[in-house]
Amino acid sequence: MPHERLVVIGGVAAGMSAASSFKRLKPEAEAVVLEKDHFISYGACSLPYYISDDVKDVNMLLSLTPKVATEERGITVLTRHEAMAIDPSKKTVTARNLDYGEEIIFAYDRLVMATGGLPVRPPLPGIDLDHVFTLRTLDDGIQIKKFIDQWTSFEPCVGPQCVYVNPFGTQKRPMRAVVVGGGYIGMEMCESLRKRGLEVTVFEKMDRVLGNMDISITAIVEEKIAAEGVVLMKGVSVEGFESDGDTLSRVITDKGPFDADMVLLVIGARPNTSLAVAAGMELGAAGAIKVDEYLRTSIPDVYAAGDCAEATQLVTGKKVYIPLGTTANKQGRIAGENAAGLNNAFEGIVGTAVTKIFDLEVARTGLSPLEAEREGIDHFVSTITGRSRSSAYPEGKPITVTYVVERGSGRLLGAQMAGAEGVAHRIDTLAAGLYNRMTIADIARLDLAYAPPFATVWDPILVAANVALKTLQRGT
Amino acid sequence: MPHERLVVIGGVAAGMSAASSFKRLKPEAEAVVLEKDHFISYGACSLPYYISDDVKDVNMLLSLTPKVATEERGITVLTRHEAMAIDPSKKTVTARNLDYGEEIIFAYDRLVMATGGLPVRPPLPGIDLDHVFTLRTLDDGIQIKKFIDQWTSFEPCVGPQCVYVNPFGTQKRPMRAVVVGGGYIGMEMCESLRKRGLEVTVFEKMDRVLGNMDISITAIVEEKIAAEGVVLMKGVSVEGFESDGDTLSRVITDKGPFDADMVLLVIGARPNTSLAVAAGMELGAAGAIKVDEYLRTSIPDVYAAGDCAEATQLVTGKKVYIPLGTTANKQGRIAGENAAGLNNAFEGIVGTAVTKIFDLEVARTGLSPLEAEREGIDHFVSTITGRSRSSAYPEGKPITVTYVVERGSGRLLGAQMAGAEGVAHRIDTLAAGLYNRMTIADIARLDLAYAPPFATVWDPILVAANVALKTLQRGT
Repeated sequence: MPHERLVVIGGVAAGMSAASSFKRLKPEAEAVVLEKDHFISYGACSLPYYISDDVKDVNMLLSLTPKVATEERGITVLTRHEAMAIDPSKKTVTARNLDYGEEIIFAYDRLVMATGGLPVRPPLPGIDLDHVFTLRTLDDGIQIKKFIDQWTSFEPCVGPQCVYVNPFGTQKRPMRAVVVGGGYIGMEMCESLRKRGLEVTVFEKMDRVLGNMDISITAIVEEKIAAEGVVLMKGVSVEGFESDGDTLSRVITDKGPFDADMVLLVIGARPNTSLAVAAGMELGAAGAIKVDEYLRTSIPDVYAAGDCAEATQLVTGKKVYIPLGTTANKQGRIAGENAAGLNNAFEGIVGTAVTKIFDLEVARTGLSPLEAEREGIDHFVSTITGRSRSSAYPEGKPITVTYVVERGSGRLLGAQMAGAEGVAHRIDTLAAGLYNRMTIADIARLDLAYAPPFATVWDPILVAANVALKTLQRGT
Repeated sequence: MPHERLVVIGGVAAGMSAASSFKRLKPEAEAVVLEKDHFISYGACSLPYYISDDVKDVNMLLSLTPKVATEERGITVLTRHEAMAIDPSKKTVTARNLDYGEEIIFAYDRLVMATGGLPVRPPLPGIDLDHVFTLRTLDDGIQIKKFIDQWTSFEPCVGPQCVYVNPFGTQKRPMRAVVVGGGYIGMEMCESLRKRGLEVTVFEKMDRVLGNMDISITAIVEEKIAAEGVVLMKGVSVEGFESDGDTLSRVITDKGPFDADMVLLVIGARPNTSLAVAAGMELGAAGAIKVDEYLRTSIPDVYAAGDCAEATQLVTGKKVYIPLGTTANKQGRIAGENAAGLNNAFEGIVGTAVTKIFDLEVARTGLSPLEAEREGIDHFVSTITGRSRSSAYPEGKPITVTYVVERGSGRLLGAQMAGAEGVAHRIDTLAAGLYNRMTIADIARLDLAYAPPFATVWDPILVAANVALKTLQRGT
């Protein structure tokens, strides 16, 4: 091997970030990316908008093609190459070309694990039936869209009298979709599927959607999806899927069967670690690959980044598994830099996320009330509803702000928000607050921007802090 | 005097906040507010939207009426009462009832100065002509709107052939407005006046609008107002105003005369301190009333808050005069609390502001490049243009982000932004950064929210930090 070589397993967010930052620092070295899928470096978070047809061209989701990665960044990208085994003693990765079947052994000086996450897919009866989908990869998204396109390529059926022929025979009704799981992706997909004219029912096992969020926020989300015609069934366990022929006919639940033409199973993600485990890497939080602050795994010269790896929650200082694209990009970049010889730390995350659910913005950062409870932190929850614009300015909308606050110290532990506008970026101010371990008294002192079209003179962030401060001072 | 009494001079943002927080803490004490105008507690920042007719009813601008202040908060509000003199040795304020002329002497235990700001109004020839307006108070806004209403209550004249009669005679043209001063209010009023169908020309003495902001931002603003039909004339000094009859006919500048039907003089505000000076109060930054962190003036038992008072710029630790509604509300509340016996500090501001200029959001926080230079801080300026949404998601808009960074330490000194969406609240994250004295390396580590409709996976805030970090590391 004439040059130093980095091998990266996985070519989506973390993997391509790692290869790119490595090559920026060491242009003379080789960076080989093994990706078992057809695509690299795509925006998985945009899949709901591709399925909804807001994004028409699948190429829009690709931030980088293998050709561009090779020509402009000098990265060797091998798609349809699945890494089969790692030999840490020999420092090799064995990969299989999925189109031709041959195996290739790559020697590495440094290795980055960017194997991503896998959809949770419990071994329920009928789970492998056609039209039971998960949504994780671009290929998943393409399949779902293709399926909906087939059905809806006919004039949508409007009114009770309509009869039209769809690919599955004469139908008097739109396609019936069941979304299993009321998490972020499930909620985003409600919008996508409704936009395509589907009937949508959500089965959620817990007592609320977005189970990790406070009920002050989830109640708003549930009201919104109901207003958009989504049927939510809470406290329902899915037990299997049945077919009258080749394809799905109904979902079996603990409350009885439910007719459906398609199922979207979005009940979470788990780290894809089989390769890491076989190679002897230690696992950490939630079974993700254990990493130190430099993103080094327990095996020398092997780094891990993205949805296969753990990260430190800065609020608690503990390792967590929160797979998000933002973290994958940051970790990937730093893993690549460190593989190239730098010594950059990835301090961690605070767990900031935002989602659009129809015209509602829902966001969170830090600990939820449930997480604070699990951590055994003595805390209280404080909620206010403010407005997105000055009361004088037309068309302001309510914004609900919930803080999780440590008793005694008054330290902000987490924040959640919902509203039709002004939520997506307001949460970032609180993310910065968490990063700096601010108390709600500190938050109340922030000098935030005001103009009537954008805020009230006391921004909802400040109102929420002042109200929480009163609770803190009462000591109740 | 049976009870303890607070007297507050000025009943807008700071004054009413002070009286309200005082009464919350001391319901048994008396709070008397003296306001020389007709209105109290109005949203002066909303005046451009009242004049534009986005806000139709002037009552929408009133957050509190004297009646409600009295009945619900127990505050004695005396409008049309002008404070004429303070006697600190006797602890009295002499006020005049402007409707009936009588003078009343109020004894006080504590006094809050909330006399606000005054528009800068240089003694130019003709400045007192009719139709030369300033915009500071609600009365100013009402007069301007009334004047425009008169003219535009006729069908707007469209096309060169139109002839219609307006109150000033037969006209073939819309009203011509000259805005003197390209600051925030001048820019906001461009939108208001264009919405009302006026021809708008801005005279700005400096080489750019929003003189304190970086040219990377002001160039975007200038392009926007030009696209909206506003004529901007830079490097022009206004020397006076002339009339052919009773009312304004033209503006005299160092570049020659310019025909105009109305002038809006918005070249800044200065603290209203004549009463304070006469009473012997010390002045501080920019001639504002000097206050300590508890908002105490140099005279015992006298506090000052809002546009008449100075504040500490937390970035430099120095006293500044930046009159803004947000600060007035916060200072007012704390002055009232301290007047009631608490000991709350007002730490200061970072100078955060946002404005809407047509469909452009423009925001700033911290020091501008010019301010950093004046402070003698070795700094560099770094600008990027990112996007408001993921490239896959439809209708994203450019966002320009400019950081002012201290060389060596990498500390963020200030930030400015412009863009069609996502600016107004993004600036707050950087305001929190300044409050916590974050470096750009810290900023680059922030865990910010991402979803395709709201941001790119590397938020413009992070991209800007990473780019600035490279400049810092190069040490150039």
